[in-house]
Amino acid sequence: MRLDVCFTPGEIVPGDLTGRTAVMIDVVRASTTIVHALAAGAKSIFPVASIEEALRLANSIGRSSVLLAGERRALPIDGFDLGNSPGEFAPERVAGKTLIMATTNGTVVLAQTTTAERVLVAALANLTAVVDDLVRTGAEPVLLCSGKERQFALEDAVCAGLLVDRLTARVQTDWQLNDGAIAAVGLARQHPVGPEFLASTAAGRDVVAAGLGEDLRACAQQDSLAVVPVFHDRHITAAPAATAG
Amino acid sequence: MRLDVCFTPGEIVPGDLTGRTAVMIDVVRASTTIVHALAAGAKSIFPVASIEEALRLANSIGRSSVLLAGERRALPIDGFDLGNSPGEFAPERVAGKTLIMATTNGTVVLAQTTTAERVLVAALANLTAVVDDLVRTGAEPVLLCSGKERQFALEDAVCAGLLVDRLTARVQTDWQLNDGAIAAVGLARQHPVGPEFLASTAAGRDVVAAGLGEDLRACAQQDSLAVVPVFHDRHITAAPAATAG
Repeated sequence: MRLDVCFTPGEIVPGDLTGRTAVMIDVVRASTTIVHALAAGAKSIFPVASIEEALRLANSIGRSSVLLAGERRALPIDGFDLGNSPGEFAPERVAGKTLIMATTNGTVVLAQTTTAERVLVAALANLTAVVDDLVRTGAEPVLLCSGKERQFALEDAVCAGLLVDRLTARVQTDWQLNDGAIAAVGLARQHPVGPEFLASTAAGRDVVAAGLGEDLRACAQQDSLAVVPVFHDRHITAAPAATAG
Repeated sequence: MRLDVCFTPGEIVPGDLTGRTAVMIDVVRASTTIVHALAAGAKSIFPVASIEEALRLANSIGRSSVLLAGERRALPIDGFDLGNSPGEFAPERVAGKTLIMATTNGTVVLAQTTTAERVLVAALANLTAVVDDLVRTGAEPVLLCSGKERQFALEDAVCAGLLVDRLTARVQTDWQLNDGAIAAVGLARQHPVGPEFLASTAAGRDVVAAGLGEDLRACAQQDSLAVVPVFHDRHITAAPAATAG
């Protein structure tokens, strides 16, 4: 069984995703925020690459029917309803709502997953839920780190490494790891996850510099939420809760 | 002082190279072979991306004035004079000659370095020579791993990590490492270099599968050669030996 990690969007070979489960990772902060939003009852999330695309889509759906969320250089966007801080996505704000989320790095990755059989979104917050899903479906996953502006992001690599570590511990088979997966496991063992670790990464430093350091606490918290976001038909919804055994 | 590592060609931001020293790394096998060829007295090496480009350039320079070297899927190319095995580049074959070398991964990287002030080529074979050069010139280097078909290659990351480790040990300053450089150092500490390590990587497995496993011994040998290849005006020559300080 193959288990691959791509550290950056430039490494994704669409043909390699055919028939496989792709897992998008953008720990600081898009995938963490997506998990929080769905856990808080958001109906669906449309990820878009730019403010302009968000506004266009909002107008086509109906501006009053959606909430606009996103960031530009870690800061909230003028005229948007929400930023990209996980804590903003509380049930009283988002339950039952359709969200349009402008997030550069994560959207670039999701746009490249059209050949995949399934596409999930993973953060530290829902690591066990995603591993449970992968175990249950017998997937041969490709973990797609979003990185930062097309470059390697250490926190995404560490999250991918934790996922590889847990999945290979749970499913005993002849896993074939690519070079990225081998490296990710090593990095996860070297960098214990916590808010201080996230603050030491390039993405974390930007969030701290924007005065949003508190967000890193939510991004660093492991297994706080059981939701599995699934990307399909251009939007993200929560997978139905799995029934036991 | 900045010290950056890019793991794949897709991460290179040409603007970030302005005024800096770029160091191309392709341990298995292009940068090792380049170092061996120059150490054996080759006059210059033109790196090209394809067999077709190699033949075109050979015809324009004069086919009898050059040696054609390269690989396709790790194997020598029909009609070429040399493959891509470091051991082939002995003085009796290449001394005083101009080489045209078809090498996919390394050439993709070199083509993106036009904004850099200087461009060097590093392998495990000339690690200390490159570090000496970077120390002497007070460079703020960007280490460019070639990767494998645009994907992460563990052996290039480990070579970059050794380079970061040695340079930061030699030059005591407030080095600012990007996420890639931090990860590379960790990976270098986890993976001691040797032929067995190289054989465990995706690039190494291909070389072994082609029956050229012996090449990995040359690729794994550290500091066997003191040459510093410099890429300028579309070709690579050896930097003049530095006079002792």
